[in-house]
Amino acid sequence: MNRAALEAQIAQKKSVLCVGLDTDLTKIPPHLLETEDPIFEFNKAIIDATQPYAVAYKPNIAFYEAEGLKGWQSLERTINYLNENYPEQFTIADAKRGDIGNTGTKYAQAFLERLDFDSITVAPYMGSDSVKPFLGFEGKWAILLALTSNPGGADFQLEAMAGGNKLYQKVMQESQRWASEEELMYVVGATKAAHLEEVRQYAPNHFLLVPGVGAQGGTVAEVMQHGMGETSPALLINSSRGIIYAGADENFAEKAAAEAQKLALDMAKFI
Amino acid sequence: MNRAALEAQIAQKKSVLCVGLDTDLTKIPPHLLETEDPIFEFNKAIIDATQPYAVAYKPNIAFYEAEGLKGWQSLERTINYLNENYPEQFTIADAKRGDIGNTGTKYAQAFLERLDFDSITVAPYMGSDSVKPFLGFEGKWAILLALTSNPGGADFQLEAMAGGNKLYQKVMQESQRWASEEELMYVVGATKAAHLEEVRQYAPNHFLLVPGVGAQGGTVAEVMQHGMGETSPALLINSSRGIIYAGADENFAEKAAAEAQKLALDMAKFI
Repeated sequence: MNRAALEAQIAQKKSVLCVGLDTDLTKIPPHLLETEDPIFEFNKAIIDATQPYAVAYKPNIAFYEAEGLKGWQSLERTINYLNENYPEQFTIADAKRGDIGNTGTKYAQAFLERLDFDSITVAPYMGSDSVKPFLGFEGKWAILLALTSNPGGADFQLEAMAGGNKLYQKVMQESQRWASEEELMYVVGATKAAHLEEVRQYAPNHFLLVPGVGAQGGTVAEVMQHGMGETSPALLINSSRGIIYAGADENFAEKAAAEAQKLALDMAKFI
Repeated sequence: MNRAALEAQIAQKKSVLCVGLDTDLTKIPPHLLETEDPIFEFNKAIIDATQPYAVAYKPNIAFYEAEGLKGWQSLERTINYLNENYPEQFTIADAKRGDIGNTGTKYAQAFLERLDFDSITVAPYMGSDSVKPFLGFEGKWAILLALTSNPGGADFQLEAMAGGNKLYQKVMQESQRWASEEELMYVVGATKAAHLEEVRQYAPNHFLLVPGVGAQGGTVAEVMQHGMGETSPALLINSSRGIIYAGADENFAEKAAAEAQKLALDMAKFI
């Protein structure tokens, strides 16, 4: 999906909501465990119920890999379901991959071609030739880790470099030499809303994927106030557990929809 | 596998050879494509032929993910084959994962428990709480990216921090506060053999996984001369394409064995 199509959907829905599909067999309603593919059945119901309020879906790949072959199958079914039924939704493989040359290309093919996600999250530590394999796919995006909201994010990302920049700022500067804002986004943790204005100095108009609203802390209003782009909202604000586990029994999908709607209404005030 | 067992195997075989299983359907001998699981059949033959000279095997997870469900199945068969037939071999999931909390734990479970690899490669960018989920599994290891040999490795890893250290050195120093040399290794690129002595100042006795010998450049002798640990070789030197694609037809496994033996003989001079 190109930038114009994503922005059009955001403008139309007045929402920048991304629903994180961190689907965990130990947390989904018990009645689903009797179905043939509980993870997919759960995702399907969540997607159908929340899609009026969302513009993006983000399966967290670790949760699928942890279930082995069956998990991989659930992931394939989920992305196929999204692409067939809601092609207007932007899809993110939250895989945090990053490797060089041939290996990076294999990961890119796995997620951007075979599974046909619109985007994949990528780790920057190995530098340009570990990010470039994820670029250049028509209408596809690399979403580079910049500033994450976990406590350990400060261990390296916020450390000062000899030139005066923090490491995450150097990552943002350097990576803009490799790709335009038409195929590169950044992950920026929302619990550091104070950092959002600083981040925007380095990427005034790039899309930012902001996790950490909801269960991880951080409010939508803070992020919208401090994080929007110059010419468009240029944000995708993710909530995972706060939405998908809002209910724990037969009415889990309705509960999820209500949470998603609540967040979308908060977002609409700023769009 | 604990450190003592790995060191015993190295001493007995006089080899620190790790065989990288970067198995690619477009590169394996054509006669295997008629079998039900060509990737596994290739790996099995390579493992059987090279195991007298090797102490470790490293499937490159991207190559399996790129084949979807079938690739995941080939990976499962490969690690099961190794664990059942050659339990003395150290196994590395070259996955370069890294994510926080619950998500990191899912990746750790996928590779260290479900697939039962001895170790997994991990990216450090997200800091302590993205590495710790891979620690604390009895007899299992995290292998942290420190200094990689690709040109882009210099983009961030070799950049000077305000304190005077390079980023990769800070990663090594910081990470030693999280884990001992009994469960933490580092990835250090071999084409920078000049850097190996510098690396050893920061990790005198940790095991180093050194890719980049063979097709990627770098020689065994250089690495052994400059990279060994204080009390033991403490090295795993990987070769992938140089071994597994040494032959291209029916005799591919013999050709691979000959390449593996040649590298192991170079190693034996120093052990």
